[in-house]
Amino acid sequence: MDPILTSIARRASALRSSAVRDLLRDAQLPGMISLAGGLPAAELFDVDVLTRAARNVFENRAATALQYGVTEGYEPLREQLAQLMEARGALARWRDILITSGSQQALDLIVRVLTEAGDSVAAPEPTYLAALQVFALNEVEVAPLDITQPTLDAPIKLAYVVTNFANPTGETWTYAARRELLHWAVRNRVFVVEDDPYGELRFADGGLPPLIEIARTIPGADQWCCYISTLSKVVSPGLRIGWIIAPEWLQSAVVRAKQTADLQASSITQCIAAEYLASAALPNRVRILCEVYAQRKNALADTLRERFGERISFRDPQGGMFLWATLSGGIDTRQLLPRARDEGVIYVPGAAFYARKPPQNALRLSFATASPATLVEGVARLARAYTAML
Amino acid sequence: MDPILTSIARRASALRSSAVRDLLRDAQLPGMISLAGGLPAAELFDVDVLTRAARNVFENRAATALQYGVTEGYEPLREQLAQLMEARGALARWRDILITSGSQQALDLIVRVLTEAGDSVAAPEPTYLAALQVFALNEVEVAPLDITQPTLDAPIKLAYVVTNFANPTGETWTYAARRELLHWAVRNRVFVVEDDPYGELRFADGGLPPLIEIARTIPGADQWCCYISTLSKVVSPGLRIGWIIAPEWLQSAVVRAKQTADLQASSITQCIAAEYLASAALPNRVRILCEVYAQRKNALADTLRERFGERISFRDPQGGMFLWATLSGGIDTRQLLPRARDEGVIYVPGAAFYARKPPQNALRLSFATASPATLVEGVARLARAYTAML
Repeated sequence: MDPILTSIARRASALRSSAVRDLLRDAQLPGMISLAGGLPAAELFDVDVLTRAARNVFENRAATALQYGVTEGYEPLREQLAQLMEARGALARWRDILITSGSQQALDLIVRVLTEAGDSVAAPEPTYLAALQVFALNEVEVAPLDITQPTLDAPIKLAYVVTNFANPTGETWTYAARRELLHWAVRNRVFVVEDDPYGELRFADGGLPPLIEIARTIPGADQWCCYISTLSKVVSPGLRIGWIIAPEWLQSAVVRAKQTADLQASSITQCIAAEYLASAALPNRVRILCEVYAQRKNALADTLRERFGERISFRDPQGGMFLWATLSGGIDTRQLLPRARDEGVIYVPGAAFYARKPPQNALRLSFATASPATLVEGVARLARAYTAML
Repeated sequence: MDPILTSIARRASALRSSAVRDLLRDAQLPGMISLAGGLPAAELFDVDVLTRAARNVFENRAATALQYGVTEGYEPLREQLAQLMEARGALARWRDILITSGSQQALDLIVRVLTEAGDSVAAPEPTYLAALQVFALNEVEVAPLDITQPTLDAPIKLAYVVTNFANPTGETWTYAARRELLHWAVRNRVFVVEDDPYGELRFADGGLPPLIEIARTIPGADQWCCYISTLSKVVSPGLRIGWIIAPEWLQSAVVRAKQTADLQASSITQCIAAEYLASAALPNRVRILCEVYAQRKNALADTLRERFGERISFRDPQGGMFLWATLSGGIDTRQLLPRARDEGVIYVPGAAFYARKPPQNALRLSFATASPATLVEGVARLARAYTAML
């Protein structure tokens, strides 16, 4: 092949070849127990209500659903999401909500608008793998987020945080830490992107308000943060519906970038999502998800403690889909993975979630898609692989 | 607002504020006749078959439609599109087809992967407005495409062409010109992106093969071109289904960029599109579209000749949705627009389709969405505004 062709594809090959892609393939092997996925549980999709929603859309609003719409999104969906935001503890007008093709696109559009190649952004370590891919595609450097220090050396353009039950760690920012982050952002002129895909998947009471709401009580802070989220984890990833709530100066820029990137999110799935949310089925569905995921989390955590004892260390996640653990005994979880696969279980090695020097002994386990019995068996297989490797 | 915030939004504000957005708003005014749109005719959507397709998807494949899928796209849809490509005169395997969120995203991904800020690309003048927006967002310069010359000064990374019934000119590349373009591309090492949204909307016999097919007969050419298209103009824009057929070295890079940009196209709309194409309803639907659009084109062209006589100049488009005309009498079509709007008709001034020095007297008229009677009335209004301005 012509060397020019090879070199001009350079940009995309700079993206890390995703370990997760191989894991997705492995998850299809017969008998394999996958704790590697980031998928929600398919058997918990609200199929009946979504089917009715789709039928209503095609019977009553086909011309709207099949035609182009405005880039900002379908107004009834934006109104429903404004109500959803109220339930999540933030006031937003429907005009403030921009619909995206999933929250992955929300993050990419914001990074694309706010940064240039060579800029620096900050994120906690470890952080969401696909966010690291966004930073790589946009050719920005990732520094560890440390809000106890001013941003000294390179100016940081943007900080990325998952505030509730983060992927991969399962951790949640306290109210005090959220305020602290915003004060730091205003002081150091760093724009904060709050990503909240899991906030409603909470196993106990006590949700905290999003940063955009807390920002109202800190002078100037409302210009320095935005909120992105998705229906993927609570309704359906197949919809590809995410949204952005941003200060006006950013929203108008992102709308233009969105128009250029793909014109608009699907009118069909926007109509279906609006119809689903209008049916008021979501709160009950979220209650079911929380109950089932909490049972699964308990099965996973209890069996890990039982099988690994002192040799594993983790904090019980209070929500979300992931448990983050470290293993003792000098084990490298990347080397453990092929042995675990041979035993019939896979997970994501912790190194995938680091932009720089990763720890060797961490791993992310998803408890969302497997039954308690399967999780018990999966941990047994993992323990066998671990013991054999010691 | 903090000057830093203003300056970091610089990138998106470099995008041309789209004249088309205002026109979309004006098109909603009561009694307004819009010849400005790029929309397909909503009354010609195949609503019944699409409704059945959606029902089948939700009743038989809900778990697939609602869940995440692979970035490359839903395999049955890729198989259907491979068959569609055969009908369009190109052999493609389903593996060669990457599903995108509309062809707008297809172009943006390719430009994003192949270029860096400051690079140059080539396109005919005038060219599709949203392609110019893609070039602006990716910060590349646009040079006029001239395949009679070697690329002399700045190396050109990429050439963008709409080969059939182009937007805005309605023009089609002859077979000889297609071969010429490919020879030029190989010789000058320029990668060619062929965009084909309108190829099936042909008012007479005689479709020409896509560049990727002709490239098989020119040594080395198959590595220097790709094909992008969409279901927006023949099935429904609300689906947001486009696709890319590219050489392997580019396809793998684009898949990674796509995964980063929005993970995947909607599983729901991919399933509906696959089901629709499998129903074999498309050829008949295309026949209806061609008949109706041809009637509308004739009504528009005949009335323009009747009302404007020698004062208008255009070539009758042989397909597509647009007629491109120039007016004599020293009229600037940007200045004519507000007067036309007062008369109750809007169009897109030709200047919107130029990256550099535009002509003053050109305009694009869409004949897709208005009935012949409405087109006749629209031209009458346009002629009144024109006469008043002379």
